[in-house]
Amino acid sequence: MSALFVALIHYPVVDRNGRIVTSAITSLDIHDLARAARTYGASALFVVHPMADQREFGARVIDHWKDGNGRRFDTRRREALELVHLVENLDAALATAAAIAGARPLIVHTSARTEGGVSYAQLRARMERDDGPPMMLLIGTGFGMAPAMLERADIVLAPILGPDAYNHLSVRAAAGIILDRLRGH
Amino acid sequence: MSALFVALIHYPVVDRNGRIVTSAITSLDIHDLARAARTYGASALFVVHPMADQREFGARVIDHWKDGNGRRFDTRRREALELVHLVENLDAALATAAAIAGARPLIVHTSARTEGGVSYAQLRARMERDDGPPMMLLIGTGFGMAPAMLERADIVLAPILGPDAYNHLSVRAAAGIILDRLRGH
Repeated sequence: MSALFVALIHYPVVDRNGRIVTSAITSLDIHDLARAARTYGASALFVVHPMADQREFGARVIDHWKDGNGRRFDTRRREALELVHLVENLDAALATAAAIAGARPLIVHTSARTEGGVSYAQLRARMERDDGPPMMLLIGTGFGMAPAMLERADIVLAPILGPDAYNHLSVRAAAGIILDRLRGH
Repeated sequence: MSALFVALIHYPVVDRNGRIVTSAITSLDIHDLARAARTYGASALFVVHPMADQREFGARVIDHWKDGNGRRFDTRRREALELVHLVENLDAALATAAAIAGARPLIVHTSARTEGGVSYAQLRARMERDDGPPMMLLIGTGFGMAPAMLERADIVLAPILGPDAYNHLSVRAAAGIILDRLRGH
């Protein structure tokens, strides 16, 4: 089975007008995505942000639960946060993932705006093969990843859809749903 | 096809020690669950809280996006928030849902701690029948719903599971995943 990694991308992303921006790390995104990553057996969650002070903020969020009073409050939350790595860019995430999995992951792009794209069933089947390569799911914040991230993708995953064309999910729900479609039981 | 309703329950829920408590409404839960409800074609999202001042807080969150500056910022968010009803208790939610759907919904209990339970495939198939009855999904906040809510259920849904026993998802991710399993494409 493929080792699975998740990368939460804060740059380059777009705002509601399509301008390329850097979004802020939020405590809740780290917690929610770490819990989903742990639930679905991901090997690591990379929180990707180019600014050192933002990564330091992320580290404080995690340390509170690993070492502070939060440790006693909820051991399951700590277990999830142990999966989190704060890194400067995608290349740093890929290098760390390669060290963990023993091979460089394929980059899997996710977006609500993709037209076409590989189906979840196809990617799931490929990941369940004995020799499945490691996979790194890119999850965008803000109003989604900038086009430059799409150009780096090895696999472009289809959007999540419900009964009609509206699919404006939060990053917290979307990440959970993508992981569930690929690894849920 | 069954009309689908979601009820986010803030009382009675349990804390980490199993004590029955009332949890607080949060802006982000309303937004995330409303967007998921809209994406998956739910007819309404009931935010259930016994305290009037908490419901007033919830109403201000919604009004900002419906009528204030938020209206211009993101029309998709407004469209999702139009599904939200703030109600005092489950009976009020059921009465409003019955008025919308023309029949009283069956109560569907969800919990990460259920042993056994109806499978998502079974419930989905039942909901896709032409004469499928309306369904009201109960989603607990805090550390999950109190036992009294289970006693009211017509259908008890199986827990969401990944590859192992850890399934400590956030309410924001869990609600999205449940809706996706029942209505996703």
